Amino acid sequence: MRNLCACRAVFFRLRAGAMVLHLVPRWSASLFRASPRWKKTYSQRASAQLKWLGCPRSVYSPLACRAYSKVSGSPEVMLTPERYPVQRLPFSTVSEEDLAAFECIIPGRVITDPEQLQTCNVDWLRTVRGCSKVLLRPQTSEEVSQILRHCYKRNLAVNPQGGNTGMVGGSVPVFDEVILSTALMNQVISFHDVSGILVCQAGCVLEELSRYVQERDFIMPLDLGAKGSCHIGGNVATNAGGLRFLRYGSLRGTVLGLEVVLADGTILNCLTSLRKDNTGYDLKQMFIGSEGTLGVITAVSIVCPPRPKAVNVAFLGCPGFTEVLQTFRTCKGQLGEILSAFEFMDAECMQLVGQHLHLTNPVQESPFYVLVETSGSSAGHDAEKLTNVLEQVLNSGLVIDGTMATDQRKVQMLWALRERITEALSRDGYVFKYDLSLPVERLYDLVIDLRTRLGPRAKHVVGYGHLGDGNLHLNVTAEAFSQELLGALEPYVYAWTAEQRGSVSAEHGLGFKKKNVLGYSKPPVAVKLMQQLKAMLDPKGILNPYKTLPARA
Amino acid sequence: MRNLCACRAVFFRLRAGAMVLHLVPRWSASLFRASPRWKKTYSQRASAQLKWLGCPRSVYSPLACRAYSKVSGSPEVMLTPERYPVQRLPFSTVSEEDLAAFECIIPGRVITDPEQLQTCNVDWLRTVRGCSKVLLRPQTSEEVSQILRHCYKRNLAVNPQGGNTGMVGGSVPVFDEVILSTALMNQVISFHDVSGILVCQAGCVLEELSRYVQERDFIMPLDLGAKGSCHIGGNVATNAGGLRFLRYGSLRGTVLGLEVVLADGTILNCLTSLRKDNTGYDLKQMFIGSEGTLGVITAVSIVCPPRPKAVNVAFLGCPGFTEVLQTFRTCKGQLGEILSAFEFMDAECMQLVGQHLHLTNPVQESPFYVLVETSGSSAGHDAEKLTNVLEQVLNSGLVIDGTMATDQRKVQMLWALRERITEALSRDGYVFKYDLSLPVERLYDLVIDLRTRLGPRAKHVVGYGHLGDGNLHLNVTAEAFSQELLGALEPYVYAWTAEQRGSVSAEHGLGFKKKNVLGYSKPPVAVKLMQQLKAMLDPKGILNPYKTLPARA
Repeated sequence: MRNLCACRAVFFRLRAGAMVLHLVPRWSASLFRASPRWKKTYSQRASAQLKWLGCPRSVYSPLACRAYSKVSGSPEVMLTPERYPVQRLPFSTVSEEDLAAFECIIPGRVITDPEQLQTCNVDWLRTVRGCSKVLLRPQTSEEVSQILRHCYKRNLAVNPQGGNTGMVGGSVPVFDEVILSTALMNQVISFHDVSGILVCQAGCVLEELSRYVQERDFIMPLDLGAKGSCHIGGNVATNAGGLRFLRYGSLRGTVLGLEVVLADGTILNCLTSLRKDNTGYDLKQMFIGSEGTLGVITAVSIVCPPRPKAVNVAFLGCPGFTEVLQTFRTCKGQLGEILSAFEFMDAECMQLVGQHLHLTNPVQESPFYVLVETSGSSAGHDAEKLTNVLEQVLNSGLVIDGTMATDQRKVQMLWALRERITEALSRDGYVFKYDLSLPVERLYDLVIDLRTRLGPRAKHVVGYGHLGDGNLHLNVTAEAFSQELLGALEPYVYAWTAEQRGSVSAEHGLGFKKKNVLGYSKPPVAVKLMQQLKAMLDPKGILNPYKTLPARA
Repeated sequence: MRNLCACRAVFFRLRAGAMVLHLVPRWSASLFRASPRWKKTYSQRASAQLKWLGCPRSVYSPLACRAYSKVSGSPEVMLTPERYPVQRLPFSTVSEEDLAAFECIIPGRVITDPEQLQTCNVDWLRTVRGCSKVLLRPQTSEEVSQILRHCYKRNLAVNPQGGNTGMVGGSVPVFDEVILSTALMNQVISFHDVSGILVCQAGCVLEELSRYVQERDFIMPLDLGAKGSCHIGGNVATNAGGLRFLRYGSLRGTVLGLEVVLADGTILNCLTSLRKDNTGYDLKQMFIGSEGTLGVITAVSIVCPPRPKAVNVAFLGCPGFTEVLQTFRTCKGQLGEILSAFEFMDAECMQLVGQHLHLTNPVQESPFYVLVETSGSSAGHDAEKLTNVLEQVLNSGLVIDGTMATDQRKVQMLWALRERITEALSRDGYVFKYDLSLPVERLYDLVIDLRTRLGPRAKHVVGYGHLGDGNLHLNVTAEAFSQELLGALEPYVYAWTAEQRGSVSAEHGLGFKKKNVLGYSKPPVAVKLMQQLKAMLDPKGILNPYKTLPARA
């Protein structure tokens, strides 16, 4: 049986036979360990009573993950320059001498085998593909520094790569950039068990860090569906938002220090472990969210919140989006400091996770679903607060049906319904992905609008996301990539968003696929300043070229 | 009777007779409205019982503030270049033509009256003094833009000034820089009553914003002793930390957008109101904490947390610093998400607030005092949690004596003991101020060390601060400024801090007085990069010169 752990091992140790391997980020294996009686269900008529219902083991068994670990016969992904209008910039091409120089710096960790390179050239969504001929796997910042010094001198373009779980084509080469992987930079440097400050190398996998700090009674301040594959360095480089943003805020507040290697190989050590430090400009902020275009993050210092003593999750069905919003207001007002997530998904999302991943809807079919999580320091107090809120939303008709979990595995099963939507979508066909910040009141209007606009040209138009942060994930699936569908979607979606003064990339970044839409959310003065910053830090433009910023006019 | 409100009015409407006026930031007037029976006191022997004790009204009466609103006969502050080795850079001097040009841009708001200028030339600590001949009071970003465009063209240096409450001489001119005050840019632009997002001009006074959002059931994510005078623009420009940092985190997370006028007058509008926005580099971060050296912040978008339904404050006496630390660990572990502040002060601080401000110690005399605040959504739950913790720390001997308050005014009275230490110190003589981030375990060692080192040369050596953030405010008072004492303190304090890998400025910034110590907390690569950033954004160096960065070699 191939389970997710095995799948990840393949991902990192891949040696041969990768031609048709369809790899997706690794979701936590524990999501698939089922218990037959795991859900507490509320119904509108019996809101004060908790009822335990059964759930067929097979639905959540490890078998469920097999289906998406490998897809036989997937067609080759089109090369990026064939699909998108992009011209190679006049960088040098990797020579035998370059390879020899790399081999001197990181002996045995210069990969040129085409089959091994294939995985690193394609994004996990299978939408973009580069043709890099070399993958470098340094273990230390000093090695990264030497590599970049060489590349800078030789004018070789470099694609820094973490877990390759990005959504916007930022993590793979566009042409033949040297791939600089952080995968072997995976050591924890220090952890302070009073302050919860973790210092680690950039290639540590988020889930492994989560496990590490949880054993010490802390949690990571961020959590993502792709936690099993994504690297903390990539999380910081893309300013990842994710599922705990509502409670623990942005990485701009939780990241305390960074070590970054600049384009010319200079090591910038701002790896402090201080909650407060106002000595000069906060340089690390320039690199957070810069998607590897300003420097390569090699180590991260991050403050971890104490592990909550109690976590409760409620999964609720709502009759309409208005009721979703009212449920949010009620939760925000009454759960206050213990509200740690408020996620929503529409009925089509639920249909897709059922169809492609065989996950079962734990509540009555509804037009919308909401996942509410509380995290607090007193199980009794938290349960009392949440129960009061749930009774109120059920009695007032804001919620049709709901289920609640406190046991960790059951909590994870409910989370899987939300976290694995991305994966279900990727199995539905080609996915046009939009990640928008919008005023919450108008968050779902665009989904409705697009269903009408696209008609049968789209297979599915779905909306889900971090409602508590005003962040909509709008996804449109089709049998295959289609220029016509793309033309119907863009720039329409961006213009619609700009009209609402929203953001055309709430948390995914711009990468390769969205770089030209920056102007919908930022004024020309800002774009010009970003270009100046890029020119200052990377005058030859070798770091992750063709990404984040539109080409200069 | 002159109370604090009157004092502030003087500050802004000053016209004449300012020769010896000694103005300090305005503390909230409500701190001085006393109620005779306000304290809940625990004693070690009767920890489970709450006892109400009386407190003499006069101690907290409005009279208490009179003493520090005006000091007659204060000697003139020495001009900065007379005390510090600093050379005027070759900027132009303000001419009659310049004044006429300013008068065209902001008619009636160009101040050249020497008496009015005096207050703006001196920092409130009375440690530095410039000799600017002109104060400009724009009302709009467009006016700021026109002013800067003129200054840039004419090579006139500019000192952006908010509430002038800074601790490091960053908010006043060093020589004859044009003072650009945000005082008249004090309008709220918008407030969203679901998301709590406030957009306002930079000159809004923090306390006024607090009042504005509290009326709408939110609070500002930051709070400072100087709230009655400081401007939100200045708070952001200095990346102010303050009293709510422990709970609501850094301005780097809570500030959502900024409008900034660049050195050449260009208006950079990044004033979004989105919780998440990953479109390109987050330019606003460059200006947060840049102390007016990279641009002038003209408007701020900031997310406000919901107003807690219950606030409790406990004021405790501890027998030693080890017990302070253990009390902190206990509170952090058990109060979890409702812990909103953990402040400490030593016995000498208490003596000074008693001596200079006539505030009374509400608990038994102790070597250390701790202020613990909880903010939460359920009064019952919060009180239960806090009571449990207090019983535990009293029974285990970590705390000798304590008092607790829930009523807002009484809460503010306890806070006054901590918030007004700065003010008490400023009345004790010349103050050498250090604001350090250190590992909590060693936080107080430096205070003890310095008492021995300085002996009778210092009047007082005190330590207090935001223990929960690892932030020590170390203050040394003397009858007057003394080069000898300064020599005994510096670079000793900085070297000691650097040895602990601490920060030589946790939250006050570097301003004029600390700019040369940047190297104790940042490596040369970082300092060089900061200088490049400054050169990129302000190539003529006209914005707040002589501040933040050491002069380039």
